[in-house]
Amino acid sequence: MKPIHLLTILFLFAACTKPSVGRSDGHPSLLMTKAGVESIRAELGNVPLFDATLANVKAEVDAEIELGIDTPIPKDFSGGYTHERHKRNFVILQKAGALYQILDDETYAVFVRDMLFQYEAIYKDLPLHPQKRSYARGKLFWQCLNDANWLLYVSLAYDAIYEWLSVDERKQLEANLFRPFADFLSVENPQFFNRVHNHSTWGNAAVGMIGLVMRDDELVNRALYGLEDDGLVAGARDDDGGLIKVEGQEVGFLANLEEPFSPDGYYTEGPYYQRYAMFPFLIFGQSLNNVRPELGILEYKDGVLMKGVGTLLNLADADGDFFPLNDAQKGMSYYTSSLVSAVNIAYHMDGNDPTLLSIAEKQGQVTLDDAGLAVAAGLRDGKAKPFVKRSVSLSDGRDGTEGGVAVLRHGNESLTLVFKYTAQGLSHGHYDKLSFSLYEHGDEVLQDYGMVRFVNIEQKGGGNYLPENTSWAKQTIAHNTLTQNGTSHFEGKYEIGSQHHSVLSFFAASSPDVQVVSAIEANAYPGTEMRRTMAMIKFREFQKPIVLDLFKVSSDRPHRYDLPFWYMGQIIDANFEYESPTELAALGSQNGYQHLYVEGSGQASSVSPQFQWMNKNRFYTLTSATRTDDELFFARLGANDPDFNLRRDAALILRRQNVSDTVFANIVEPHGSYSPVSELSDNPNSSVSELKVVFDDSRYTAVSMKDRQGRSYLFVVANKDVASDRTHSLKLDDQVLTWTGPYYLIDRSGD
Amino acid sequence: MKPIHLLTILFLFAACTKPSVGRSDGHPSLLMTKAGVESIRAELGNVPLFDATLANVKAEVDAEIELGIDTPIPKDFSGGYTHERHKRNFVILQKAGALYQILDDETYAVFVRDMLFQYEAIYKDLPLHPQKRSYARGKLFWQCLNDANWLLYVSLAYDAIYEWLSVDERKQLEANLFRPFADFLSVENPQFFNRVHNHSTWGNAAVGMIGLVMRDDELVNRALYGLEDDGLVAGARDDDGGLIKVEGQEVGFLANLEEPFSPDGYYTEGPYYQRYAMFPFLIFGQSLNNVRPELGILEYKDGVLMKGVGTLLNLADADGDFFPLNDAQKGMSYYTSSLVSAVNIAYHMDGNDPTLLSIAEKQGQVTLDDAGLAVAAGLRDGKAKPFVKRSVSLSDGRDGTEGGVAVLRHGNESLTLVFKYTAQGLSHGHYDKLSFSLYEHGDEVLQDYGMVRFVNIEQKGGGNYLPENTSWAKQTIAHNTLTQNGTSHFEGKYEIGSQHHSVLSFFAASSPDVQVVSAIEANAYPGTEMRRTMAMIKFREFQKPIVLDLFKVSSDRPHRYDLPFWYMGQIIDANFEYESPTELAALGSQNGYQHLYVEGSGQASSVSPQFQWMNKNRFYTLTSATRTDDELFFARLGANDPDFNLRRDAALILRRQNVSDTVFANIVEPHGSYSPVSELSDNPNSSVSELKVVFDDSRYTAVSMKDRQGRSYLFVVANKDVASDRTHSLKLDDQVLTWTGPYYLIDRSGD
Repeated sequence: MKPIHLLTILFLFAACTKPSVGRSDGHPSLLMTKAGVESIRAELGNVPLFDATLANVKAEVDAEIELGIDTPIPKDFSGGYTHERHKRNFVILQKAGALYQILDDETYAVFVRDMLFQYEAIYKDLPLHPQKRSYARGKLFWQCLNDANWLLYVSLAYDAIYEWLSVDERKQLEANLFRPFADFLSVENPQFFNRVHNHSTWGNAAVGMIGLVMRDDELVNRALYGLEDDGLVAGARDDDGGLIKVEGQEVGFLANLEEPFSPDGYYTEGPYYQRYAMFPFLIFGQSLNNVRPELGILEYKDGVLMKGVGTLLNLADADGDFFPLNDAQKGMSYYTSSLVSAVNIAYHMDGNDPTLLSIAEKQGQVTLDDAGLAVAAGLRDGKAKPFVKRSVSLSDGRDGTEGGVAVLRHGNESLTLVFKYTAQGLSHGHYDKLSFSLYEHGDEVLQDYGMVRFVNIEQKGGGNYLPENTSWAKQTIAHNTLTQNGTSHFEGKYEIGSQHHSVLSFFAASSPDVQVVSAIEANAYPGTEMRRTMAMIKFREFQKPIVLDLFKVSSDRPHRYDLPFWYMGQIIDANFEYESPTELAALGSQNGYQHLYVEGSGQASSVSPQFQWMNKNRFYTLTSATRTDDELFFARLGANDPDFNLRRDAALILRRQNVSDTVFANIVEPHGSYSPVSELSDNPNSSVSELKVVFDDSRYTAVSMKDRQGRSYLFVVANKDVASDRTHSLKLDDQVLTWTGPYYLIDRSGD
Repeated sequence: MKPIHLLTILFLFAACTKPSVGRSDGHPSLLMTKAGVESIRAELGNVPLFDATLANVKAEVDAEIELGIDTPIPKDFSGGYTHERHKRNFVILQKAGALYQILDDETYAVFVRDMLFQYEAIYKDLPLHPQKRSYARGKLFWQCLNDANWLLYVSLAYDAIYEWLSVDERKQLEANLFRPFADFLSVENPQFFNRVHNHSTWGNAAVGMIGLVMRDDELVNRALYGLEDDGLVAGARDDDGGLIKVEGQEVGFLANLEEPFSPDGYYTEGPYYQRYAMFPFLIFGQSLNNVRPELGILEYKDGVLMKGVGTLLNLADADGDFFPLNDAQKGMSYYTSSLVSAVNIAYHMDGNDPTLLSIAEKQGQVTLDDAGLAVAAGLRDGKAKPFVKRSVSLSDGRDGTEGGVAVLRHGNESLTLVFKYTAQGLSHGHYDKLSFSLYEHGDEVLQDYGMVRFVNIEQKGGGNYLPENTSWAKQTIAHNTLTQNGTSHFEGKYEIGSQHHSVLSFFAASSPDVQVVSAIEANAYPGTEMRRTMAMIKFREFQKPIVLDLFKVSSDRPHRYDLPFWYMGQIIDANFEYESPTELAALGSQNGYQHLYVEGSGQASSVSPQFQWMNKNRFYTLTSATRTDDELFFARLGANDPDFNLRRDAALILRRQNVSDTVFANIVEPHGSYSPVSELSDNPNSSVSELKVVFDDSRYTAVSMKDRQGRSYLFVVANKDVASDRTHSLKLDDQVLTWTGPYYLIDRSGD
């Protein structure tokens, strides 16, 4: 059976079981409908956030009209003039189209038409873009991806003025601009169009959107199901090293929706690319729902399109910044325009969830279409409810069986732990199985580096990925997880990494004061099983919750292990002896180690070593259960970085040599604060006095912790039989402990 | 004539020429008066900010009363329990006293009395504090300074409950606590009490305040005029290296007001210590004004007390953070409680300046006394006007003749330049003649390091000055100014530095788009004259104002010069060749150079070298006019820092060797911005294409600048005859330039 048939069957099934919105007649028909435009016009002046957005957009477009139309001959990389001009053009075209519909003012229709005809005049003769970096060079831009952005936005503009144009004008535009543009992005660039990849999603959606406007079913079907015969060779790669052709893999928009999203709505590349990929999914999804309701796109895969929006919002810190899993530029947040669209569409298309309104309110703008009107009216009518982010475990993989990511949150996001046990994440994946990052409110405490790229900053390598993204950011040592023998997981090889995924052992977050997640990685280092259990615990006697981190390793032979903690901020104190060199040399020569300077190194003392730092006027202490021959390194990023592409971030690295089976136990303890205005410290010292691994075998791992008031706690985690109703029994210090569930935490102070 | 007489005469004169508030009878009489308390009680519930502050303070004090009184035996450094407890005690005592007066609730009087008697019970038997670091050890605290803090605050508490106490209670407290306390801080510690130093100001004010409450003229006079016979030896030093005894120097509170404040209200140690020193000045000042109006303290030295408040507010960045000149912890701002007092007192005592109300509004609290009521009532009545910080030149030195500091501001503090040409600044001074720092809005662009101290963070050396404050922060290379032959100004010696000061050449800031300041330093390096001219220029064609920096050196023999730019942020680009070492070594072995790693070094190319960085999503470019044999170093702080006391900040250092007379010309150009949310760069490239020194002699220095649009500008500064009405003439490129005033800026594009 060919893949296309399976999808078709699924759709017919979905379309039969759920009601769908009636097919839209005439134009506009995508994000705006005739009925929607009527409502918008009727409500104008009465919906504050819509009215405010409209005023801003009108001012912006009017300024561009004033400036005049420029469609320069393409020449530059991103950040350069021609790139930024064409990018701005498609954004303004879409906005001008919306203004024409909303304000019924021909000025905007004329502007859209005139610019489209300027493109029409040059398009057919345009050669490939002169910059040759991409595996799929565009015409207006250096890569097809940006050309697809153009076509998707411009489809909306064309939809807006479609009925205003004469039949001849439409024919001319379609014959000389839109149809060749769609063909260029698809049949002429199958390596771009016929993949499961966010690039292809854009390509598919762009071709499908213009097809919907043109009522060209052939284009729409091409978008939905891909090219039947693409002539591609299995194993070909793009310039990020990603696989282009996988034999037997379904392609097209539906496959792109099926494949990278888990049933929980997690996008396998991570939230940074999810927010980018969501946009074409949602735009084309809403448009399909309007024009081709019989497809039942919103019900597809148990409603994954809408579910993805909520998932993405949950993959943000307290400030709305997305967790930088895999390749991700920090600072990207749910304030980005694609999330304005996503939130608006999700609200409008999926049951008017009032918690989405509180996000829209923070965003401070809406889309100028049917969805935006619904949101602005909901806000006006006082329907908003808080969007509360909770602890979640999100599966990865098409069927939700390829590991996942867990987010543990305490209080009102006062502490947030992100724990990654996903699959590889396609070409943007990092080699960081079982890594984690930690946030206090919106501030990083222990960071994930993110990517080495300055998007659209042309001075930095044309705004593209920099060499250090591969030599540093993707490597295991760049993350808060374990490196064996100085080599990255899966040898840092995509072919190997993409065959495997970690496995969730258990996720137990129903009690807010004791939340535990545990996951296993058995393939990163052949012959070695790694299991990490992370518990966010709020002891009554402690000011803030702590994170207990148990990293258990079982191997068939001895190895050397490095476990870094990429702390943010200034070193305040360390209770162990260390040497500080006067000259700095790199810690190693490859796999990321060549980028690390050693600023200090010491031997673990017999007591639990403690390391304290301060960030954003808050104190943190790391308490480790070490062996006396463990080494500790103060590492600083920046070696072998001739172009200064790396930040000078720092880590404390725990090193243990020559062990087969071992447990790294650590407590990350946020405590106290400091005010440079009052110059007072509050709770500046750790409350932990000791951490010890007291038991470890294949069934259980147990640690004891003492606090400075003399209280003693025991935490046991089951390494097998982790069902929540399973009863366990363990004899420890002549005492038999019995409990139910995968972990056990007791206060032994009374013993 | 003894100094005391001169001061007395001055006072009598002042008292005769200006009216003063009538003498307060009875108690309270310091910051609260009987009449004031009546007004407060009458207005309660009617003055929102006062009411809100009252509610907060009441909650705070009630919680402390609930907790119970603890006056532990002194033991700890700052940050430790006994230190923080006694500190908290005096703050709470003062607040409880105020609550008693305002609320007429004996609970608070009882609490104050009980705690005072707990202190009374132990005080006479208390030995010196066990920590021996200070040159003047206290009893409750490790240094007399903190004991003086205690007595000053407690004077206010005692004043508040004075009339409520029985005569016997007063006698007992005065005999066993207050009088011995005051004697301890003065006659028993003359090295603390009898200096011109912020420590002594606190000591003087504390002794004076308790004297005012006790109506003990002997104590008040001791405070005002110092100890007549202190038995101190000239040349003795404190533990910061500051001079204790200067032969013939006047001492006491009045001398402390006379000596370190310039007629412009600039405090010679810098704003960080000014905000600390201002507090006792103003508290004791207002109290003297109430109890001893005949002294005319507010009119003293042309009203310098009140003038100092406005000056201090002007020495803050757009966020209210004080410029960290000399020893200063960053983050200290006008939100600190001493500035709440200062602003309230200045408003109340000095003509109800409505612009102070806008600062008070930002502070969000008032003092619970007469001044605070006046401010809260002013705000309630809508009298607040914006406090607009302007460009200022502030003289340093008792008579305003010892150099100074200039602040150039453009727009609404969009760009702020701080240029330092002061005297040494007593023991807290740094060796950084002609240094500068630059801010865009409230963010540092080119920084002054500040001090190496973590105030009240006990883990970091007891919260005291760390060794790197001397080895790094005070050194010249730590600042944005010129180092000759790798040695700091005045050899880094306080004895030499404190004999000299820089000299303002001219300050011309009347035109907002061209503001120029120029100053000379002739003593930092014997045989060498340094002149720095800094111009903040807004060219119409540029997006933002730039800073043109001309550093001219004239010496009797050749030297090596290093000029660092301590930029904040991430390197984006450099248009010159450089080598990047794989191992890092220090740039030198002393005078701060031992703390600098060299991350890269290059040779200036023939074109104007440009260096671009990004901070807080804004771009900056440094364009230099170099000689081809100039070297450029990328330096990173952190070498020889075994305790990790230093931040890993970075500098670009320009090095020029073997020159006698030379000019370093540089342009610091803020431009553009970047959004990680939209991922768009705005104006990411420098607009400057070339900078050249085209003329330099003893009379004039001229530079030409070209921009990328081909425009050409010429800037000439006069090195002599800088009067604003002076006409100059210079022949350049066969063209005779004629102008009036100390500088000349022309657009030569039309030439």
